[in-house]
Amino acid sequence: MEKFELHILGCGAALPTPHHFCSSQVLNIREKLFMVDCSEGIQMQLRRSRLKFSHLNHIFITHLHGDHCFGLMGVISTFALLGRTATLHVYGPQGLREIFQPQIDFFCQGMDYTVELHELDHKQSEAIYDDRSVTVYSFPLKHRVPCIGYLFKEKEVMRHIRRDAIDAFGIPISQINNIKAGMDWQTPDGDIIPNHLLTTPPDPIRSYAYCSDTMFSPRNAELLEGVDLLYHEATFLQAHELLARKTFHSTAQQAATFAQLCHAKKLLIGHFSSRYEDADVLAEAQSVFANTIAAKEGLCISI
Amino acid sequence: MEKFELHILGCGAALPTPHHFCSSQVLNIREKLFMVDCSEGIQMQLRRSRLKFSHLNHIFITHLHGDHCFGLMGVISTFALLGRTATLHVYGPQGLREIFQPQIDFFCQGMDYTVELHELDHKQSEAIYDDRSVTVYSFPLKHRVPCIGYLFKEKEVMRHIRRDAIDAFGIPISQINNIKAGMDWQTPDGDIIPNHLLTTPPDPIRSYAYCSDTMFSPRNAELLEGVDLLYHEATFLQAHELLARKTFHSTAQQAATFAQLCHAKKLLIGHFSSRYEDADVLAEAQSVFANTIAAKEGLCISI
Repeated sequence: MEKFELHILGCGAALPTPHHFCSSQVLNIREKLFMVDCSEGIQMQLRRSRLKFSHLNHIFITHLHGDHCFGLMGVISTFALLGRTATLHVYGPQGLREIFQPQIDFFCQGMDYTVELHELDHKQSEAIYDDRSVTVYSFPLKHRVPCIGYLFKEKEVMRHIRRDAIDAFGIPISQINNIKAGMDWQTPDGDIIPNHLLTTPPDPIRSYAYCSDTMFSPRNAELLEGVDLLYHEATFLQAHELLARKTFHSTAQQAATFAQLCHAKKLLIGHFSSRYEDADVLAEAQSVFANTIAAKEGLCISI
Repeated sequence: MEKFELHILGCGAALPTPHHFCSSQVLNIREKLFMVDCSEGIQMQLRRSRLKFSHLNHIFITHLHGDHCFGLMGVISTFALLGRTATLHVYGPQGLREIFQPQIDFFCQGMDYTVELHELDHKQSEAIYDDRSVTVYSFPLKHRVPCIGYLFKEKEVMRHIRRDAIDAFGIPISQINNIKAGMDWQTPDGDIIPNHLLTTPPDPIRSYAYCSDTMFSPRNAELLEGVDLLYHEATFLQAHELLARKTFHSTAQQAATFAQLCHAKKLLIGHFSSRYEDADVLAEAQSVFANTIAAKEGLCISI
């Protein structure tokens, strides 16, 4: 299977601590890197991860709180110093341009590449990025400020060719793509060889969704139905549910309940508050949704 | 002696590396903390240093290159989240307000303390801060953009009282400060007791100067004459002197020559480029000025 890997660069809430950087992740889809959120110091984490800076062309910011975007200028400047020439696309809610364009203009005069800032509508879901292997959708989260979740979904891929069958029936190379796409094969004698004898099923379509920061928001369950890996913030324990509501965050129990609602295959929780032990937050989520894991700096998950 | 300690939080040039954070230091003068430069991720370094956040009220930015100020918004935000109420003063060259005030307004709405941004004249030396124990002077550095060095100089302090002599002559408490200030004591019988019998000499006046980023700039030697500890950037080896000149930086040899010129008691070098081993840069400086040490994250120097 082609690569579809998630790297956790930071998973702490609000304040960086000795245990956690603030929110940032990189999704590696067939060696194209997609960053989600970009907190302070994340360029150092990116270096530690040994991911190739030059393969990162798209950064998705969920919202304009410092713990989700204070690393952006560092990343942009470092890329300039490293001689980058490829355009870097940064997506985020309204306000992205107002706050970052003046900084880019001030700090990055004369750099050899362009940063394109894309402001998204935080009130609706839309396809915001598309290439031949993946589509990225935005969707609304429910936070104190405009906040956007991101869904990364592989495109339907072709069936796998069975080399032995192709050889046995003497099928010419020019026909391979048609057969991969599902066509049967008619021999020179007029016999029809059904496609399922010539191919094996395609790889399953994989998907990853990122929900942070947000209150429990069941309206997104339909869009995320069946998602392979769901990242959902779990800032609080259920004991502090009122506080979670007041600050527009979620409890671990709510994150797990949302994973159930959208039939996620696996739940990844993060945005850990320093007031708890991560293990306690994980235990609460697992009591509702067993297949839950806790984010951790340096963790790499193959989806 | 009262505390006069320098903490190195970061000492790398331009790009943070696995070995070095970018430029930032904290000077602890009698438990008042003064930060010089504030690079990305420095709030994490500040936490590691165990210096008390609440004792930091003054931050001095040398110039508006990202590797010297990208940590400022993180520090300001974290202080707000920790419930700070005391005003934070940030000093720097012109442009400081243009670039940081909009960010503070955007990211720190409703915080319980004020950040005062002080724009300094980068073309002349002036006293910019003063309390009962220290005066801070700005002075011009020679870089690609307006750039300011900072000199921290203790004030003349009073002589130490000799408890035993005070007791022996029955001198009342009301007179102690006069005696510390140098006055003699007249006994009720009219005898004059000279001050040197009642006191011991005051602690020497200590000073610390920060020169980064800058070309070799001998015009500052007079102001920094006899400085106890001189921090001077040493971005390049002398072999790359042309490159140093082109980028308005210094070589290790130039840093050491400047330390000689101003008769510094000790030289501390930093702003290390990742192209060299720090040890090679140190060796070059030491060959000219023996009492040189290399900055390193976590290093604490008592001045």
